[in-house]
Amino acid sequence: MTPQQLRHRIRCGEFEANTSGQCPGFVQGNVVILPADWASDFLQFCQFNPRPCPLIGMSRAGETSLPDLAEDLDIRTDIPRYRLFRHGKLVEEMSDIRGHWRDDLVTFVLGCSFSFEEALLADGLEVRNISEGVNVPMYRTHIPCRSAGHFTGNMVVSMRPMLAADAIRAIQICSRFPSVHGAPIHLGDPAQIGVKDLAKPDFGDAVTIRPGELPVFWACGVTPQVALEQAKPPLCITHSPGCMLVTDLPNSKLAVL
Amino acid sequence: MTPQQLRHRIRCGEFEANTSGQCPGFVQGNVVILPADWASDFLQFCQFNPRPCPLIGMSRAGETSLPDLAEDLDIRTDIPRYRLFRHGKLVEEMSDIRGHWRDDLVTFVLGCSFSFEEALLADGLEVRNISEGVNVPMYRTHIPCRSAGHFTGNMVVSMRPMLAADAIRAIQICSRFPSVHGAPIHLGDPAQIGVKDLAKPDFGDAVTIRPGELPVFWACGVTPQVALEQAKPPLCITHSPGCMLVTDLPNSKLAVL
Repeated sequence: MTPQQLRHRIRCGEFEANTSGQCPGFVQGNVVILPADWASDFLQFCQFNPRPCPLIGMSRAGETSLPDLAEDLDIRTDIPRYRLFRHGKLVEEMSDIRGHWRDDLVTFVLGCSFSFEEALLADGLEVRNISEGVNVPMYRTHIPCRSAGHFTGNMVVSMRPMLAADAIRAIQICSRFPSVHGAPIHLGDPAQIGVKDLAKPDFGDAVTIRPGELPVFWACGVTPQVALEQAKPPLCITHSPGCMLVTDLPNSKLAVL
Repeated sequence: MTPQQLRHRIRCGEFEANTSGQCPGFVQGNVVILPADWASDFLQFCQFNPRPCPLIGMSRAGETSLPDLAEDLDIRTDIPRYRLFRHGKLVEEMSDIRGHWRDDLVTFVLGCSFSFEEALLADGLEVRNISEGVNVPMYRTHIPCRSAGHFTGNMVVSMRPMLAADAIRAIQICSRFPSVHGAPIHLGDPAQIGVKDLAKPDFGDAVTIRPGELPVFWACGVTPQVALEQAKPPLCITHSPGCMLVTDLPNSKLAVL
């Protein structure tokens, strides 16, 4: 199934599931939709914090397509599940946002870890959350983001345990993909970034850490979600966790080298 | 002073010191000179173990120049200090090997850590052995090299302590320079590579490891020296530690990216 075929099935209500594992090889993105008068601050927040908020696409106000990312896209119908927030509070989940669409809404698409996890697997590395069939563990850190307008907060990180040699290889591989969080931001002692207990992630699921493995931490796309919760825009629409925008962009196109 | 000018001063006996810090920006190399009937095994050892033995130049038998590395070079006179080994034993140090030259001698030049240390410093990273003005600490590991003929042995590594974020950046920088040992081969727990006590290096000097720093380990050019000691060729001439061959090659030319 091509990404366009999948999006068509989603639009027709024939696919309502998690997009993880769908259309392997193609970029999936986090989606944030905001009113235009909040969009410029959010854009600056992404610009200030590219590691957790790597912007791969942005629409003009009112525009429902993103021709650079996907052909024949309607951002109001082509994601399996949306979340609608008012003043930072989740009020509704739905599979179609046409009823909420406004001419001042701006769509942002941010890179997601699926792309670099695929590159790690392709190199023969193990990605523990995938081996164990769970969500990646994510943690709040004490690393502050650079604020922009109402948008502020600390960085959230995802963690994948690895032996040192694999961690070094993962740093090389992920460095090629700055638009999907890039190289890890930390490895080793979790306390150095304000993470107290690896067994108790703030989001996602804990994974096994085997003897001799180091926890390796990447900037995480949950960071802008936390910033959005704190900023409390009157309206904000996002994808539901795991139900991403599947684009026509091959993952390899994101490699800078 | 250009590298050619420095080599001329060395040749005339006007410079007999350590080459560390001389001609910044230019590649300095480890030198190994062997009889032709030992050279092919050593070449294969380098080929099998490129991380500790990154070959950047090799002469034909009897040839005293290396035109790809340096203009107007005479390998018999242009290094400040040589060591002569017979059957693996150091028998003499000298500043000129013309009296020992033979038509069957083959010269090998291997990349050295000076090049990547310069790249780390240029990026603003601290290199502890340089800050503390000592030789880098080096350790024997239990990581076996792939043997070739008589040449065998375990890898020797150099160690530079760094905070995790700096270690990640160092991995990125050094990955660009595979011909000067490339990315680190390990970081974190020394015991995993058979290193027992960081305070007691097998070669070089111990350096301070500050709280929160990880030891970062690179494959080291002492590895082939250890293999040569064990192989015991009837004759082997090398540079003296720290008295390297200064080439005309800019360090930046070694970057693969």
